[in-house]
Amino acid sequence: MFDLSFIILPLTLLATAVMAASASVQAHRADMDAFGATVLAIATGMGGGTLRDLFLGNTPVFWITDLRYMMVAIPVALLGFILASRMPSGNGQRLAMLLHLDAIGLALFTLTGLQVALAAGVHPMMAIVLGCITGTAGGMIRDLLCNMTPSLLKEDLYATISLVGGGIYIALLPSLGETPAFAISFGTMLLARIIVLARTRTSDAA
Amino acid sequence: MFDLSFIILPLTLLATAVMAASASVQAHRADMDAFGATVLAIATGMGGGTLRDLFLGNTPVFWITDLRYMMVAIPVALLGFILASRMPSGNGQRLAMLLHLDAIGLALFTLTGLQVALAAGVHPMMAIVLGCITGTAGGMIRDLLCNMTPSLLKEDLYATISLVGGGIYIALLPSLGETPAFAISFGTMLLARIIVLARTRTSDAA
Amino acid sequence: MFDLSFIILPLTLLATAVMAASASVQAHRADMDAFGATVLAIATGMGGGTLRDLFLGNTPVFWITDLRYMMVAIPVALLGFILASRMPSGNGQRLAMLLHLDAIGLALFTLTGLQVALAAGVHPMMAIVLGCITGTAGGMIRDLLCNMTPSLLKEDLYATISLVGGGIYIALLPSLGETPAFAISFGTMLLARIIVLARTRTSDAA
Repeated sequence: MFDLSFIILPLTLLATAVMAASASVQAHRADMDAFGATVLAIATGMGGGTLRDLFLGNTPVFWITDLRYMMVAIPVALLGFILASRMPSGNGQRLAMLLHLDAIGLALFTLTGLQVALAAGVHPMMAIVLGCITGTAGGMIRDLLCNMTPSLLKEDLYATISLVGGGIYIALLPSLGETPAFAISFGTMLLARIIVLARTRTSDAA
Repeated sequence: MFDLSFIILPLTLLATAVMAASASVQAHRADMDAFGATVLAIATGMGGGTLRDLFLGNTPVFWITDLRYMMVAIPVALLGFILASRMPSGNGQRLAMLLHLDAIGLALFTLTGLQVALAAGVHPMMAIVLGCITGTAGGMIRDLLCNMTPSLLKEDLYATISLVGGGIYIALLPSLGETPAFAISFGTMLLARIIVLARTRTSDAA
Repeated sequence: MFDLSFIILPLTLLATAVMAASASVQAHRADMDAFGATVLAIATGMGGGTLRDLFLGNTPVFWITDLRYMMVAIPVALLGFILASRMPSGNGQRLAMLLHLDAIGLALFTLTGLQVALAAGVHPMMAIVLGCITGTAGGMIRDLLCNMTPSLLKEDLYATISLVGGGIYIALLPSLGETPAFAISFGTMLLARIIVLARTRTSDAA
């Protein structure tokens, strides 16, 4: 945790911001107002970590004791909502940008969730599962609140990438140590997700 | 807590009853039977406080250790369901009555949730958030179970009133003490909600 | 717990498997892929017990500390999904089989949930409620994730059977002891559910 801690916190806050931004764009599509977008952004950005903390019994959950998560998510959500309402629709470039930022969030939340689970003394196999929950549950809650079937359940290469990334981290941790394992796992997840997104765009365009 | 405790408990039970009644009317609209209405009423009346307790780690959650909440919610839900199935539809007066009772529930749950959070040693800013969750999450769960996008996400003057009311309580508490802060915050939230409801009805009628 | 413990564990794992299998069939209908089916199966098979553990404060929740639940649910879900995708549709016999297996799950989860609640020192009336939550919440979560109104809310003889079965167990426990109370309650719930299913099929066929 030593070498990484000073980089993990800003990255986690960045991931929370990214998830919040993507949620507020979706809120705009679902005809919500600025307040609804903020609630949705908070639920999306903190939902995965909240479930992880509840399942582990880490209470009060992380965002109650550390106000910074709310203080990052709320302005980002409002900003995202304002930008989304001024965007010309049908362009798709901003959606693509958000999907790539969302991929950063998936990779970061997976790894920070996994580390919290390991620190709680959980079996490594289960820590991978809890990392995946941390990385993906926020998006599931977002889709439920928007009254949609969670896209996670229909897109197999989202959560699978999280599980594989968690497995890579656990496999490399004993020999390489935390920082290299984190970096390789993070890079692999990000790259895999970018390839999936590129293929989806290509097949959509065809 | 001294002066208020003897009035807060009956008011909380009243709020639970009110939320349960409003849920059972919605259950009737959604074609549920009496049992479904009861489940929906329990989830609506106790959902907000349950989430608050889970997030804080106050377990077992309040309704497990205090049976009175169930014993109030269940008969009220059944009564509400029976009345709703005998009501002539299209009148709107009973819906209006329920919306006003729901406003009482919103104000009461916000303040009792806030007090529970403060008693747990939470930062005042976060206590306002937990008060808002206590006041509004029951209705969100109700809408989710009815397979609707939560109205909270589309109606900005519901949760906002809860947050403002919580802010008033926190602001007045140091100088005025608990009872006046409670009374002023409660009155403000109720009045604000009644004004919003009156305006909505006027604009619907126009 | 003595006489029963060696039979309860395999039965609980069987119930988890049964719930997982039924969820994966529903996942196939809802156009999910194999991964979505697995997630849905896990949420269905473990959702009820997870809520029970969270409400009681039994954390980490059961499936984090006992890996066997995941190790049963995942292969069963995949198997169920593969079988469902190769089944000719419109036959109905396999659906009937699953509904009967689901009845076993309802009865077993109700009783094991009730026992966990009693062991946590909960009032017997509330233990019946927690048994019902353990038995039925998994199916509610499954329906929510499939973006359907939970069938529990529209079918009164599902959760009611769970509550009655719990009541029978609590009523017989002092005089008969655990094993006979468990057996009679289990048999009653299973029989009642089979009768309801038979009547529903007859009235559908008519």
